[in-house]
Amino acid sequence: MTTENARHRLALDLPDRPGLLAEVAAWIRDHGGDIASAQHHVEGGRLYLRFCFASATPRERLRAELATLAGGLRAQVRLNDPDAPARVVALVSKEGHCLYDLLARQADGDFPFVIPCVISNHETHRRVVEAHGIPFHHVPVTADTKPAAMARIRALFAEARGDVMVLARYMQVLDAATCEALAGRILNIHHAFLPSFPGAKPYHQAHAKGVKLVGATCHFVTAELDAGPIVEQDVIRVDHADGPEAMARRGRDIEVTVLARGLRSLVEDRVFLAGQRTVVFR
Amino acid sequence: MTTENARHRLALDLPDRPGLLAEVAAWIRDHGGDIASAQHHVEGGRLYLRFCFASATPRERLRAELATLAGGLRAQVRLNDPDAPARVVALVSKEGHCLYDLLARQADGDFPFVIPCVISNHETHRRVVEAHGIPFHHVPVTADTKPAAMARIRALFAEARGDVMVLARYMQVLDAATCEALAGRILNIHHAFLPSFPGAKPYHQAHAKGVKLVGATCHFVTAELDAGPIVEQDVIRVDHADGPEAMARRGRDIEVTVLARGLRSLVEDRVFLAGQRTVVFR
Amino acid sequence: MTTENARHRLALDLPDRPGLLAEVAAWIRDHGGDIASAQHHVEGGRLYLRFCFASATPRERLRAELATLAGGLRAQVRLNDPDAPARVVALVSKEGHCLYDLLARQADGDFPFVIPCVISNHETHRRVVEAHGIPFHHVPVTADTKPAAMARIRALFAEARGDVMVLARYMQVLDAATCEALAGRILNIHHAFLPSFPGAKPYHQAHAKGVKLVGATCHFVTAELDAGPIVEQDVIRVDHADGPEAMARRGRDIEVTVLARGLRSLVEDRVFLAGQRTVVFR
Amino acid sequence: MTTENARHRLALDLPDRPGLLAEVAAWIRDHGGDIASAQHHVEGGRLYLRFCFASATPRERLRAELATLAGGLRAQVRLNDPDAPARVVALVSKEGHCLYDLLARQADGDFPFVIPCVISNHETHRRVVEAHGIPFHHVPVTADTKPAAMARIRALFAEARGDVMVLARYMQVLDAATCEALAGRILNIHHAFLPSFPGAKPYHQAHAKGVKLVGATCHFVTAELDAGPIVEQDVIRVDHADGPEAMARRGRDIEVTVLARGLRSLVEDRVFLAGQRTVVFR
Repeated sequence: MTTENARHRLALDLPDRPGLLAEVAAWIRDHGGDIASAQHHVEGGRLYLRFCFASATPRERLRAELATLAGGLRAQVRLNDPDAPARVVALVSKEGHCLYDLLARQADGDFPFVIPCVISNHETHRRVVEAHGIPFHHVPVTADTKPAAMARIRALFAEARGDVMVLARYMQVLDAATCEALAGRILNIHHAFLPSFPGAKPYHQAHAKGVKLVGATCHFVTAELDAGPIVEQDVIRVDHADGPEAMARRGRDIEVTVLARGLRSLVEDRVFLAGQRTVVFR
Repeated sequence: MTTENARHRLALDLPDRPGLLAEVAAWIRDHGGDIASAQHHVEGGRLYLRFCFASATPRERLRAELATLAGGLRAQVRLNDPDAPARVVALVSKEGHCLYDLLARQADGDFPFVIPCVISNHETHRRVVEAHGIPFHHVPVTADTKPAAMARIRALFAEARGDVMVLARYMQVLDAATCEALAGRILNIHHAFLPSFPGAKPYHQAHAKGVKLVGATCHFVTAELDAGPIVEQDVIRVDHADGPEAMARRGRDIEVTVLARGLRSLVEDRVFLAGQRTVVFR
Repeated sequence: MTTENARHRLALDLPDRPGLLAEVAAWIRDHGGDIASAQHHVEGGRLYLRFCFASATPRERLRAELATLAGGLRAQVRLNDPDAPARVVALVSKEGHCLYDLLARQADGDFPFVIPCVISNHETHRRVVEAHGIPFHHVPVTADTKPAAMARIRALFAEARGDVMVLARYMQVLDAATCEALAGRILNIHHAFLPSFPGAKPYHQAHAKGVKLVGATCHFVTAELDAGPIVEQDVIRVDHADGPEAMARRGRDIEVTVLARGLRSLVEDRVFLAGQRTVVFR
Repeated sequence: MTTENARHRLALDLPDRPGLLAEVAAWIRDHGGDIASAQHHVEGGRLYLRFCFASATPRERLRAELATLAGGLRAQVRLNDPDAPARVVALVSKEGHCLYDLLARQADGDFPFVIPCVISNHETHRRVVEAHGIPFHHVPVTADTKPAAMARIRALFAEARGDVMVLARYMQVLDAATCEALAGRILNIHHAFLPSFPGAKPYHQAHAKGVKLVGATCHFVTAELDAGPIVEQDVIRVDHADGPEAMARRGRDIEVTVLARGLRSLVEDRVFLAGQRTVVFR
């Protein structure tokens, strides 16, 4: 990989048949591409591919020619600059740990993303968000104002040219219109190892059941609460001495990392929807 | 701790009130006891205590005097020799990994237990079990013979003077009579992170749901399938490339360790039932 | 535990002999104490005890009478209010992830501590620190100014009435004077699983060696670099595809949690020094 | 993949240049291959590839034509039947847990391998090994007989047509002749997280240092003790209450799984040597 060549990230999702890997790899070679990484998965009759490669061919020309290839293969394709930051709009309520972690990751340049704005139904975190130089929008939600609030959130997302919406412990259920408008682009962090303990107060449910580990799940948001395809999960050990509050305290550490890992996978084009399941390349 | 003193393990479960720890610790001191470890938990108005101590007082005299103390405190007490092996009757079907692990632990002296006999509805593992010098009983189970088979299992357990029964991947549901007769003494290993995926084919359920970790749960057996109090759990990471068979293969490693840890906790008097939950001292 | 009773946390470190638990538990009972948790460890001829209890006896009177008890037992004792926040002075350089995590935990009330000030050899994090309402002190360090800078840090710590100093990825080695003055009160986070890979560039060392997990270690700071007693550790899986930068990115998540857990244990009086080892009650 | 097609597993290690993936994938396609999985890694100027594919072309013809391809690419190639069991000769001393686990995995068909014989410097495990229908060879080792014993081991390995030798807690250091003769084919399990605590009594070293996790490492055996390239590692949590014996007891569970995972990776052609490091495809 010579330094003057730009880096490209290519993701494809297409109907499987013999010879496809050769065909796509040849296309990359024929466009001057030098492959740094290649990932491959076959499931349910579909082939999922992800490549990082360097090439002197301009990205726009690659995109144009890729459209032709994709048409022939009936493939869904994404070609992106691996250094271009995704625009991640964060929604939060009062608990700040997931939001603060995302702010720290943006500040540290942990992976390529920016937070163009933060939206909250509370004023709690305005000061810190603004200290990061990020606009903060207070959008209160009540039973009466919910449709208007949701429309406002969609508008703010559009104004911010958001790529992804992250519910970083946002304690309101999004309405169906928002779920549909941004299908495949909204991630939630749920503080349980789904499918166990969906809905409210999962740590209380976990304590009553007496589980020995508590979990966190990053999943796509769909109209059905806490039931969208799972992107990332993790657990942490608890014991009998941990009441629901102690479980919540221990669990926050994995909520933070599970959300961040799921988000990173999504913005780095590692995630593919495969029915109710996801393919997530490491 | 002088070497001539015997070691004792004391477990108590009693209604909590101020001053109990002082009272029990004083009782140990007044019987010449030197405490090596003490564990303490309060939950739901009850106090759970576990002590290991050395004392020159004969165990039988300690037991007699402890009965008096326990009566006054309305306590359930156990006083055991930490070096005396528990008698663990293992039930198994065709999959041998949990059984073979228990055989290896007995051979290695991993923790104080012996397997006085193995019971199976298949002949698969007779040869290896007998090579360990352990009697093997083949008790076939069909819909018609189930009550008789269950009675036979209870009789074998009694003949073997079993303390604990372990279902080491035993693919038959025990009947209510057995569950009741041995309540609090039967452990099962379920190949899922309960309460997710109880019942049949949990790895297939886990694959369909697309979870990113699969689990194993060691729990007490009760009349309700896979719903008894949980003693130990663990999980292992899987990814989209793992079909149900690969999940099963990865999961077997944690089935083995979760069952062994749960069993060790039980036979070392570390486990207390607290309603639907368990207290498990480390 | 009645609600009008104050909560107290008692930690003792004393020469072991039979009967001590009874004696200390009786002392708590005789001062109206109702024990919520008790922890006990014997090692190297010493007994380590930690109690949380509720009592109507004023804390100052408990402290005075405890001094008498401690004298008789030759015990080191600490009696604290479990709700009183420890004052944790944070030192940081350019990488902000550990600092931001501590700021988030203080904001969320994760465990009882406050950050009275942040000290850094760079200006990088001033704005966010001040947005949290916390004073930020820029203390540059060069080879020439090091003694003066260290003295300034000790002075700032004293002015802030610090209980604990945390090196939250602070890239300067503290001088011997500071290590001695604050012995047992300074925690560092090292980005490796000590004793592997002390010193500079541990992720590069780890990559060259080809380890399959990278670690983080929270330890007491002593005059010998990265060799103080270990308080907490954790690891995360990496693979051949992770270069040193990817290892660093994965490792940051455990640096954050390991430091936070170590700090929480210390400020909650869960940590005891036992020679080169530590006792850390859960 | 049609059912009449045989499955093949192809591993390549070659000097990297642009276009290689296309070339190899085209070769597979041109030989009727339908790719089920493809793995790819570039490091240090070399490309590592692993494919599972189905093809009606006979394996011997594939092998012959692959030799031509490999010559042109200066590649090291392996083409194997994924269902053909590797022949794994196990060496063991007195502690049986790793051996018993391997016996159980062979019996259960956990992954494709057979144990053609077990070699030990003690008679301890003869009975159980023979109950599995496996020949057991007692080869005592003393300082005087070591060269002869090592030659005997190499001869037994050759007679058994061994592919891989596994030191399943074998407490003798192999001599240089054996290390060289079987370079890249001998795996050891060391009961520590290397590079920490090589050599004797690692759990005692770990206890003295006060680490909070103990580890196990599966590595290739080279002439330098415990310093060969690492294939797999894992850790388990311990605490201050665990003496060296308790650490050893907790550690045995990861010794077992780390060795089994390392062995499985090796026999499934997932492992490539890359200098002092290894590439291990999942």
